[in-house]
Amino acid sequence: MPLLVTGSIAIDTVRTPHGVSENCIGGAAVYFSLAASFFSPVRLVGAIGSDCPFHFDKVFAGRNVDLTGLEIRENSKTFRWAGTYADNMDDRKTDHMELNVLAEDPPKVPGSFKDSRYVFLANTAPNLQLELIEQVGSPVFVAADTMNCWITDHIKDLKRLLSIIDCLIINADEAKMLAGELNLISATEKILQMGPRIVIVKKGESGAIMCDADGGRFILPAYPATEVKDPTGAGDSFAGGLMGYLAQSGNADFATLKTAIAYGTVVASFAIADFSVNGLTCLSRTDIDSRFKTLRSLTSF
Amino acid sequence: MPLLVTGSIAIDTVRTPHGVSENCIGGAAVYFSLAASFFSPVRLVGAIGSDCPFHFDKVFAGRNVDLTGLEIRENSKTFRWAGTYADNMDDRKTDHMELNVLAEDPPKVPGSFKDSRYVFLANTAPNLQLELIEQVGSPVFVAADTMNCWITDHIKDLKRLLSIIDCLIINADEAKMLAGELNLISATEKILQMGPRIVIVKKGESGAIMCDADGGRFILPAYPATEVKDPTGAGDSFAGGLMGYLAQSGNADFATLKTAIAYGTVVASFAIADFSVNGLTCLSRTDIDSRFKTLRSLTSF
Repeated sequence: MPLLVTGSIAIDTVRTPHGVSENCIGGAAVYFSLAASFFSPVRLVGAIGSDCPFHFDKVFAGRNVDLTGLEIRENSKTFRWAGTYADNMDDRKTDHMELNVLAEDPPKVPGSFKDSRYVFLANTAPNLQLELIEQVGSPVFVAADTMNCWITDHIKDLKRLLSIIDCLIINADEAKMLAGELNLISATEKILQMGPRIVIVKKGESGAIMCDADGGRFILPAYPATEVKDPTGAGDSFAGGLMGYLAQSGNADFATLKTAIAYGTVVASFAIADFSVNGLTCLSRTDIDSRFKTLRSLTSF
Repeated sequence: MPLLVTGSIAIDTVRTPHGVSENCIGGAAVYFSLAASFFSPVRLVGAIGSDCPFHFDKVFAGRNVDLTGLEIRENSKTFRWAGTYADNMDDRKTDHMELNVLAEDPPKVPGSFKDSRYVFLANTAPNLQLELIEQVGSPVFVAADTMNCWITDHIKDLKRLLSIIDCLIINADEAKMLAGELNLISATEKILQMGPRIVIVKKGESGAIMCDADGGRFILPAYPATEVKDPTGAGDSFAGGLMGYLAQSGNADFATLKTAIAYGTVVASFAIADFSVNGLTCLSRTDIDSRFKTLRSLTSF
């Protein structure tokens, strides 16, 4: 089933206790597309400026990632982010950010992408996410991510978005903030009342939780990774593995979503093992399936 | 199989966002004994002062908890702890503490307890834990808990203890501190090299991890509790459920340990639902087995 992703493409500079990666490729749409491409063809919608130094043909070499929706804007500059991770590899601070092309009109969804059935709206202003999803004809499963600044400053648009999507994929702290609830399970239940039939909460090294509107729940720990060099893109790689598996299955029932979350968890565990997208580009589906089996055995009793 | 616990008995005053519980019963040995008694007979070794207002016959009514090892010291006072939990129910600060009887000689292990096969040494000074375990004849499985102050100030005694016990049950932050490692899995592997064949790391609302010396690993999320009134005693209730199940099984192989960790998780989820020991005293084994099944279904994919 065709899987569409809309999201940022970034020039990142990342500092972690393991080193520095300067002006490397990043951005939600890039991590997502690489992660999802192990499972399903991907259609990428995103914009960059003329300063963008990356060769996308090489980045996505050998993968079924359709770049028809990649807009290169001659008079614009690419989104840039620089950040530093603390020793615990969890807390991070933004050292520098230039929105650049992200502050302009969102990219258009190409005509050939309008029949996409699975859609992921990576984190951006909710009014732009709404504008993007309106361009897709009749998707069967739409998931979106969001973050604190949209919750505090654009809650009206965000609630409109929540009323039309199937699934929200969100960090634990932001789920609590959105629901105004300190208990994570209660927060998740409150978000379900805002519209989506599925809420998936990302808890970083503590794993993920899913709740659905019928009372279904699933909890999965993170893969116990000993190699963590750069957590950037972990959440988007998780979403990519998850949505890629759903698109491959052509199904988003509860049992399929559980397996999809486990695949997302596994792909994210590879993504954080190296800087930028290197943890994903050197990977094979066999590696993923092998670690998926390990995760199942690690968690069963 | 006879299960022995040595640990504190406390007069607690606990403040949480849900209320205050003044001068209520607490202490590691009390939580542990109640939790373990759902699975196995328990032998309690601990000391209190003549000020202790609790009727232990009532607290343990209907349970197979042998109080032969409970020392009531006429000229001493009972250990007192008062603490306040933050809104997130995770961070807590100690408002007041009086060691009292805990600063004296440890209680003796009665002659009738010396044939105990399963032993839990709740958190106290490691030289006292060593003194206590030396009084037990030939235990088959000894687990201990410890905390930050023993790691920083009594590391030599603690390493002696680690070299003779089978299993360390420890909080995540303290595991990292003990190993001098920021990655939790690497920390656990380093602790295994200090002696125990099993390390079980408690991660609070993020669940638990077990690693053994043969490379076996198990990860389990916490039960997704919506009712959390008082987290005091969660770790000792976890250890009680875990050790109680092992003693009931008469076995501590990896598969049995996995099930035991799941039982510990379930018992802890009940313990935190009410103040002091009320979450445990109103509980039945049927409640525990039912939630155990729920936990298995919540985590399987």
